[in-house]
Amino acid sequence: MYSAMASIGFAQESTYTGPIELTGDGGGQRVLILGAGLAGLTAALELRAAGYEVQILEYREKAGGRCWTLRGGDAYTEMGGATQSVDFDEGNYFNPGPWRIPYNHYAILDYCRRLGVELQPFIQENHNAYLHRSEAFGGAPQRYREVATDFRGHVAELLAKATNSGALDEELTEEDRALLLEALRDYGTLTEDYAYVMSEETSDYRGFERWPGGGRNAKGVPSEPMDLETLLDSRLWRWLPDAETVHHQQAIFQPVGGMDMIARAFEREVGDVITYNAKVVSLRQDETGVTAGYVDAAAPGEVTEITADWCVCTIPFSILGQMDHGFSGTRARAIETMYYADGFKAGLEFRRRFWEEDEHIYGGITYTDLPISLISYPSNDYLKSGGGVLLGAYCWGAPAYQFNAMQPDERTRWVLEYGARIHPQYPDEFKTAVSVPWHKVPWVLGCYGIWEDKERDYEETVRMGEGDRIALAGEHLSYLPAWQEGAILSALDAIQQLHERATAQR
Amino acid sequence: MYSAMASIGFAQESTYTGPIELTGDGGGQRVLILGAGLAGLTAALELRAAGYEVQILEYREKAGGRCWTLRGGDAYTEMGGATQSVDFDEGNYFNPGPWRIPYNHYAILDYCRRLGVELQPFIQENHNAYLHRSEAFGGAPQRYREVATDFRGHVAELLAKATNSGALDEELTEEDRALLLEALRDYGTLTEDYAYVMSEETSDYRGFERWPGGGRNAKGVPSEPMDLETLLDSRLWRWLPDAETVHHQQAIFQPVGGMDMIARAFEREVGDVITYNAKVVSLRQDETGVTAGYVDAAAPGEVTEITADWCVCTIPFSILGQMDHGFSGTRARAIETMYYADGFKAGLEFRRRFWEEDEHIYGGITYTDLPISLISYPSNDYLKSGGGVLLGAYCWGAPAYQFNAMQPDERTRWVLEYGARIHPQYPDEFKTAVSVPWHKVPWVLGCYGIWEDKERDYEETVRMGEGDRIALAGEHLSYLPAWQEGAILSALDAIQQLHERATAQR
Repeated sequence: MYSAMASIGFAQESTYTGPIELTGDGGGQRVLILGAGLAGLTAALELRAAGYEVQILEYREKAGGRCWTLRGGDAYTEMGGATQSVDFDEGNYFNPGPWRIPYNHYAILDYCRRLGVELQPFIQENHNAYLHRSEAFGGAPQRYREVATDFRGHVAELLAKATNSGALDEELTEEDRALLLEALRDYGTLTEDYAYVMSEETSDYRGFERWPGGGRNAKGVPSEPMDLETLLDSRLWRWLPDAETVHHQQAIFQPVGGMDMIARAFEREVGDVITYNAKVVSLRQDETGVTAGYVDAAAPGEVTEITADWCVCTIPFSILGQMDHGFSGTRARAIETMYYADGFKAGLEFRRRFWEEDEHIYGGITYTDLPISLISYPSNDYLKSGGGVLLGAYCWGAPAYQFNAMQPDERTRWVLEYGARIHPQYPDEFKTAVSVPWHKVPWVLGCYGIWEDKERDYEETVRMGEGDRIALAGEHLSYLPAWQEGAILSALDAIQQLHERATAQR
Repeated sequence: MYSAMASIGFAQESTYTGPIELTGDGGGQRVLILGAGLAGLTAALELRAAGYEVQILEYREKAGGRCWTLRGGDAYTEMGGATQSVDFDEGNYFNPGPWRIPYNHYAILDYCRRLGVELQPFIQENHNAYLHRSEAFGGAPQRYREVATDFRGHVAELLAKATNSGALDEELTEEDRALLLEALRDYGTLTEDYAYVMSEETSDYRGFERWPGGGRNAKGVPSEPMDLETLLDSRLWRWLPDAETVHHQQAIFQPVGGMDMIARAFEREVGDVITYNAKVVSLRQDETGVTAGYVDAAAPGEVTEITADWCVCTIPFSILGQMDHGFSGTRARAIETMYYADGFKAGLEFRRRFWEEDEHIYGGITYTDLPISLISYPSNDYLKSGGGVLLGAYCWGAPAYQFNAMQPDERTRWVLEYGARIHPQYPDEFKTAVSVPWHKVPWVLGCYGIWEDKERDYEETVRMGEGDRIALAGEHLSYLPAWQEGAILSALDAIQQLHERATAQR
């Protein structure tokens, strides 16, 4: 069967080829795992299954790390001391960190399957959501379907013109020119004469001025496309390909009930080996083993020392670099030079799902050039009466730093002010908010790790060197930074290395 | 609030503007409704609420009409007498008729909300599903993401070339040329020099030869785009815009558990006024009322006559034209000249969800030039162990007529044979099938109504004329033919007309 599959081209393209098989047995050797994010949880689950005695130290009071969901009743204290108490209604939630799982993230999908985490489609692209630029169309948001259709139409019309004028005769054979024209007519919904015009056909893509109905006077009234110059000047085209990347293209998922359902599922398996509220302050390895020191995260006092034969360290380098870690060489350089991306997210609860009721937007993303960058509508509980939680801001770079510098109430005020320019219902319907600037998250101090020189340092950092008893893992040690898949794949490679050494030495 | 909404452009564009309000009261006048499809059910629900005494005659043993779901334990007998017994596992189902609800179908979505029908996303577009043409790539299916990315890339590169060569100088100002080039670079993932090439950037859209991972040797290996000539000759581009139409674009839904959950929800409301297994054989109106005759559909014998003050007739014209209907003029001409589209669908149950497990396809559609036309993967129960039901064929035109001419077993054999060219797992994993050629469905004899001359006959047919006591409704009396929305909107207009007359006469 596999060869038949490979021959038609759907052999496994991922580095993940199914559940890890650690041949041989850990024989009760002790592995200390630092961090109960998805990398640490994966390592614990698989190493214990392979016969190791595992223990996890976790800074927080629960597992998951950035795989994190805030719900009503939760409280969160950021760097600087501001505490936000979440006042969402039952069933509503906000994922400050990862919020979607693409189909090509085979490892995390397989863990969801194995651990019984129910998934539902995440709606990335919504043709009825908006593209918005403050200086285009007098600040009025435009529907995605209108911009996308008009862009395809005008591009197809221009290329057909160039083709018919002979401008591409050197590029294309006569046969290919004919095929290209046929393709452009399809792709751009052009007329027989290769023109992009107002018609029922183009409205069948961009939407109607009045939609077709039933009974009397029910014929649809076509909508007028925007002209090429207006479209180009609007710059709204800049967001068109966003749902086409492998990270966002369909199918793409979210766990039912919040991203941390994955953390909870792992926790059901390995929660018994986690020491919570344990802030690691030192880490050392020698020929015989590994020693870590930790304190109570809530009330730092006496240092407890713990030893093991091996260690999987998933602590973000932003944190690891601040402790007494004892690494040297390339690893030390990577730890010291890695910086952590900014990132800001705000969850807004509204009393009414006005985006569905008034605007017929079910899931998906509105993009804007305002500092909030985007608004994402919930991909669940469609048509439900009562309230819902919008992702009211998800930004990076300068705007994220601006939000980072504000206290929670001020952040909320600005997020609401910007969002109201797209959804005027904001002031009337707003109930409560919670927001997370990632540089203020005490246990990671940023969103994800960025290498100073990945070509130079990466392989030597992820590879356990001669005599190393510490394997490093986490999203920062992957080519899928910021993604949970990167964390899991990194952990699987780390424990593979660790296991090879541990079994070789026995 | 409404004026604020209208000013930013999201006033209601549909003919449906919320629950119908029939002012005044039916005062107990009797309305006979023919057909318990969504049009008849809507009419019954709303007219009863407005004070009419309603009664429905329905040919089948249950409500819904083409809003129909087949499950394990069901049996279905088509014209010609062949009976198929459905042997699906618990929880699996197949919708022979409508299977998706676009976000712009406001009326049916509102009835789902009012009647508590739970919806879930229908996945129309899946970048990891296939495009397949027997004569392209030696018959090997290609991933949608590869064809879509390469098409955008080559089109953008060609148009950039033409723009830079001056071929469009008469079409575009210098400023617009600069904006167009910038847009094309984004849209087509072009290099600084406007070339579409193999790179990490293009692989971030079309997918990688080896996907990026974590730990050692985890860098992604880019994939090689297909060259322009191969792409054009493949003709696989013909299916690219299919998910962009207003009928297929996101957000789009399906009821959880099968399309007939909508019929069942209506049935809970008005099931008490439905006479099932009632085959209408005659229909007459005069100045005082309406008379219909019907027989037992299972064992036709004596004709029962029933009278009422008014009638809403939702019987498809393919059936109405064969009975003693008494219509004249334009209505009679429309009834006699309307023909019904062909259409064929097959549901295939497999023992294993191999499309997910082996090929990472979660929902969405594979298109092919084979007679099956497409394969659609279930938009529910992702990652579930055990079997699932594929839509193994959904075709029109010549292939539908070919399937129509076959007995069920022969249809299954061919659907499997064609599908196996795309999914070689078919023979090993197949469990059972059920298929429906719509020209053999006894109560409609086709898929949906097509007008001989809609401009000529439509308005006079849907409008109740002087002295008419019969209103006509159904998808065929709409500008959304074949869609449930058309049936519902048509029914709402029909009862509006009926109500105006009934209240004017009191």
